[in-house]
Amino acid sequence: MMRRDRIFLVTTLTAIFSADLYFILLPKLRIIRQQSGHLCSCGHKNFTLPRHGGLASPQLSNWTSAPPLDIITSEPDDGISKLERLFSHPLYNIQTPLLGPEERLLQAEHLMEYYRRKVSRWERHMKIYSGAAALSNITVIEHEVTFDPDASWVKFHLGINRYALYSRDDPAIPKLLKESQSMTVVSADYTQDEKALKGACDCTQVVKPSGHHLKLALKMQNFAKVMFKPMRQQRDEETPEDFFYFVDFQRHNAEIAAFHLDRILDFRRVPPVSGRLVNVTGEVLQVTHNEDLRGVFFTSPANNTCFFAKCLYVCKTEYAVCGNPDLLEGSLSAYLPGLSIAPRISIPNPWIRSYTFSGREEWEVNPFFCDTIKQMYPYNSGNRLLNIIDMSIFDFLIGNMDRHHYEIFTKFGDEGFLLHLDNARGFGKPSHDEMSILTPLSQCCMIKRSTLVRLQLLSRQDYRLSDVMRESLQGDLLHPILTETHLLALDRRLHKVLRVVQRCVRRLGEDEVITRDFVKSTSRPQTVTEMREVR
Amino acid sequence: MMRRDRIFLVTTLTAIFSADLYFILLPKLRIIRQQSGHLCSCGHKNFTLPRHGGLASPQLSNWTSAPPLDIITSEPDDGISKLERLFSHPLYNIQTPLLGPEERLLQAEHLMEYYRRKVSRWERHMKIYSGAAALSNITVIEHEVTFDPDASWVKFHLGINRYALYSRDDPAIPKLLKESQSMTVVSADYTQDEKALKGACDCTQVVKPSGHHLKLALKMQNFAKVMFKPMRQQRDEETPEDFFYFVDFQRHNAEIAAFHLDRILDFRRVPPVSGRLVNVTGEVLQVTHNEDLRGVFFTSPANNTCFFAKCLYVCKTEYAVCGNPDLLEGSLSAYLPGLSIAPRISIPNPWIRSYTFSGREEWEVNPFFCDTIKQMYPYNSGNRLLNIIDMSIFDFLIGNMDRHHYEIFTKFGDEGFLLHLDNARGFGKPSHDEMSILTPLSQCCMIKRSTLVRLQLLSRQDYRLSDVMRESLQGDLLHPILTETHLLALDRRLHKVLRVVQRCVRRLGEDEVITRDFVKSTSRPQTVTEMREVR
Repeated sequence: MMRRDRIFLVTTLTAIFSADLYFILLPKLRIIRQQSGHLCSCGHKNFTLPRHGGLASPQLSNWTSAPPLDIITSEPDDGISKLERLFSHPLYNIQTPLLGPEERLLQAEHLMEYYRRKVSRWERHMKIYSGAAALSNITVIEHEVTFDPDASWVKFHLGINRYALYSRDDPAIPKLLKESQSMTVVSADYTQDEKALKGACDCTQVVKPSGHHLKLALKMQNFAKVMFKPMRQQRDEETPEDFFYFVDFQRHNAEIAAFHLDRILDFRRVPPVSGRLVNVTGEVLQVTHNEDLRGVFFTSPANNTCFFAKCLYVCKTEYAVCGNPDLLEGSLSAYLPGLSIAPRISIPNPWIRSYTFSGREEWEVNPFFCDTIKQMYPYNSGNRLLNIIDMSIFDFLIGNMDRHHYEIFTKFGDEGFLLHLDNARGFGKPSHDEMSILTPLSQCCMIKRSTLVRLQLLSRQDYRLSDVMRESLQGDLLHPILTETHLLALDRRLHKVLRVVQRCVRRLGEDEVITRDFVKSTSRPQTVTEMREVR
Repeated sequence: MMRRDRIFLVTTLTAIFSADLYFILLPKLRIIRQQSGHLCSCGHKNFTLPRHGGLASPQLSNWTSAPPLDIITSEPDDGISKLERLFSHPLYNIQTPLLGPEERLLQAEHLMEYYRRKVSRWERHMKIYSGAAALSNITVIEHEVTFDPDASWVKFHLGINRYALYSRDDPAIPKLLKESQSMTVVSADYTQDEKALKGACDCTQVVKPSGHHLKLALKMQNFAKVMFKPMRQQRDEETPEDFFYFVDFQRHNAEIAAFHLDRILDFRRVPPVSGRLVNVTGEVLQVTHNEDLRGVFFTSPANNTCFFAKCLYVCKTEYAVCGNPDLLEGSLSAYLPGLSIAPRISIPNPWIRSYTFSGREEWEVNPFFCDTIKQMYPYNSGNRLLNIIDMSIFDFLIGNMDRHHYEIFTKFGDEGFLLHLDNARGFGKPSHDEMSILTPLSQCCMIKRSTLVRLQLLSRQDYRLSDVMRESLQGDLLHPILTETHLLALDRRLHKVLRVVQRCVRRLGEDEVITRDFVKSTSRPQTVTEMREVR
């Protein structure tokens, strides 16, 4: 394992060095050669470099700006798409080392055995259910079900490894997205989350919303399982300014867009999500075996089929969602492997928000909060804090304030990547950039070099984030997924992220801020802590 | 009392005869004189007479159309407003007989005694409360309170009589409307309805909404009491087509508009309502003595002051309403005299709707439902059924499907008028005319002659309902109260009411359908019942 790690480290460092050469050294050399007095000749309209005297060395200022024009034009406009060009860029083609069994989440034989048991349980259940349903005069449509060991969802599960949920060129992912959009749904049920509530609204927190969630688990003909979140808002509807983030709607298009963004950022920490027009009658009501779920369906005054969330005492008819008359847009997120074969733990985000009206968390009032966190396990070594910062950048870009917990696979331990699950509260306010989401970055002043170079690439005209996102989202059945204002907000926010990094570099120097990935020793965080003490 | 009744009967009959002469006989004579073959020369674009061979006598067809042009132009365009012209029309100037004490709701001495007791109770309460508040460090703004026996609200209460809530020319009503808009609010509390729930949501009915109501009782400096319903929707927002009427929002502008419409229809069965920008901080939060109410206030992310409905287990933050930052539009409805001095009873509407998703009431499936009702007390004699039909016309015009109960003052017994309270679910869908609301009219085929002649007048170009409503609503602080589409819907619906009456007349003849007011004997309903039996 150690040898493989070393190979991977070398590959990564080589890639980072080429990026460094391309983005940092080359422009520096150019500036020195030109001997020009001004620092920047940005082509961007919306992006101006902060010039108020900071600590940054002048040579560093230009890495958030576009590279000189001749570099841009030297790249041929070869007719291929920006998205394809992005994915063929060297930064997106770093070779992943060969994975040993301990670096994969699941063993093939183990998984097959698990699924075969599941299939036979399903078959037994269906036999019993069919008899009972016939007796109680319930008509449930029964579809043929076949378990295919080569199904794309099985390949997705087998591909999960210690570096990401899927590899860049895994053909199973586009296949999985496509199949989610068209495959026959054979059963529908509440998700485990909803079942855990047992009809009771969550009243442990005064202001916790309690009926916005209408997510369902759908099973496909080939045993694939997806989470269905129905459409609640029009694309151009915005979160009202008086809404707290925790009472905001969940948006199906935010789930879809978040998956595409995560892939473009090369994080690959969001399970595949695709959009689909679900027939709530034929694909939910008529295939569910859950009496409670059947009981929340009704026909609206406009003759549409609707269903609503049910709480112990209150029926949330106000939150009903309706088909037209049966078809309803929704996001379908691929399920991760079951917790019994791939356990995960859910950990509170150190930068968690207060879920009350007036409460404030420590990070909101203490500017040195990160220094405390840096000293605490598991943030005092390895990549965990850098992963949190990655996540905060991702959440800032999508405008998600609701990241109260994050999940990791227990198998990969503290070095594992963070799963970016549940992104439906993103993309609510396209004209507002919630800077507080970036607090982990601005307080810790650390970022992975590999993340930074990709962000820089995406801030350039020829790889512009909004353009590659627009193109990527066009692949979804429900496109357009995001309005133009949301797409343009991504560019604006990306520049704000880069500006925060730039300010950190000015203050602390590049070596302190831009961090090597896969740091294993505990030396680095200690250095940072010591540094604060001498500040 | 008998003599006074007789005088009133004579006056009413005289007025009705003049209306008859003007609307029915004169056009008939004109038609006979002209010997023209066609029945109608309507000037209205949107209104065409149904010509499919019915039972109606041809002479009757023209009373839903505009009178011949020379009659319209004979009325001088004297520069006075349409609304003033309406209120000076003979139909709106029928003399009310002098009222005896038994025809008034309240005796002045009795009422004064009652209010004086209330005032001293308030003063005692304030003394105790101030002391307690000081001890527990609550700052409540205390305003000077004075009880004025000549206050407009006292006059409104004293003016309530067996015919209506107020008389047409009572100067206390405009004064009351004006004072509601400007007078200092000295205290705020939940209404008795909300208190009765004691924080528990009403879960007796599966689909009953349970958090939309945020109405509050406000007390003014001169002891006037009003019910405040805050704005929940923009003027141009419509009820989504999939919403059942019982989960629809309550609209403050519907309350205001319903009062104006009721006055224009000359029913005078809606207590005065005016719009006001209420300062939710200074006029609610800082003057309430109710701890629970204080507890539902919060500051929104946009720094606005908001409050929400609270249920036993669930805090309905999703329904919060917010000021901007403190000012919030709302409707203020004058309170009726307390139940202890002027008891009322609430009676289920015979044409009540099912408050479940799929349930149907008998009237929806039985076209002869009215015949059953006509035989039942109290609908088998007097005006009660005609009053129900008046109410259904009013509700059809405003589009209110939520009239599950109606109230009457017990003092006036079965002959009393019906109060048209709680109209906030009107004006939800301007482009939809819910014909089922008119079922009492279309199934019973009866209407008061006095109601019909006013509806006919308001369908005419020179008294057009939308025009007089627009003008009337301009008097409110929060104008425009209704969008143009809502105003124009009133004209369209009015014509539909007249067409339903016309169809009844064709089928049963004018004498059966157009009914004298203030029928006392039981002969009429029996005749109708017998009539059905011989049909």
